[in-house]
Amino acid sequence: MNALGRHILAEIYGCKAEILNDRKRIEEIMVKAALEAGAEVREVAFHKFSPQGVSGVVVISESHLAIHTWPELGYAAVDVFTCGERVNPWDACNLITSMFNAKHMTATEVKRGIFEEEVKVSNL
Amino acid sequence: MNALGRHILAEIYGCKAEILNDRKRIEEIMVKAALEAGAEVREVAFHKFSPQGVSGVVVISESHLAIHTWPELGYAAVDVFTCGERVNPWDACNLITSMFNAKHMTATEVKRGIFEEEVKVSNL
Repeated sequence: MNALGRHILAEIYGCKAEILNDRKRIEEIMVKAALEAGAEVREVAFHKFSPQGVSGVVVISESHLAIHTWPELGYAAVDVFTCGERVNPWDACNLITSMFNAKHMTATEVKRGIFEEEVKVSNL
Repeated sequence: MNALGRHILAEIYGCKAEILNDRKRIEEIMVKAALEAGAEVREVAFHKFSPQGVSGVVVISESHLAIHTWPELGYAAVDVFTCGERVNPWDACNLITSMFNAKHMTATEVKRGIFEEEVKVSNL
């Protein structure tokens, strides 16, 4: 059984509210996490909500990182989805947790793109 | 136990390869799925890989939709993450599956941002 990708769904609690409401800083942290894990950044899209909260995504050659924050709850929902063997999604996830000064993180890894049999590659 | 969001991880198999390799069309399908589910689109970022494959994300007020495609396998990994009661993520997921002419879709819904106790809202 082969999986194309590894997708970490991380629940990050007890983060500093002022970090979670700072669009620029979150974008920097997410891009830094992608790069330090060895990913190649392709597209970046972040949005600040009023009165609070930030959502954003970093599209990488290996898939994507995503974040949604609730500063008033000290909570961030973070996804790190990577394909291939070169990048370990846990490296990015742990770096983000650390940079948010989080008190508590729980995460699940889900395999994506599971093929039980060998697949026939079509010509496009 | 309260969850802030619902996150669907969909594995979509048996899709038409020519759709999965068409950045513009995938972007249109993802945005359409978001809008038809009642979401508010905030940011859009899509990328076409060489020789094949598309990755992209639609940031919505309610969280995000993401996609990664492997045209040569007829496979797409799709995420639909929504917060609040107003948007049903399954509406978007089913629409995407239908518009990809997929033969087979399996999906899991994961609750995000679970708070067992009532939370104290901090002032920013």
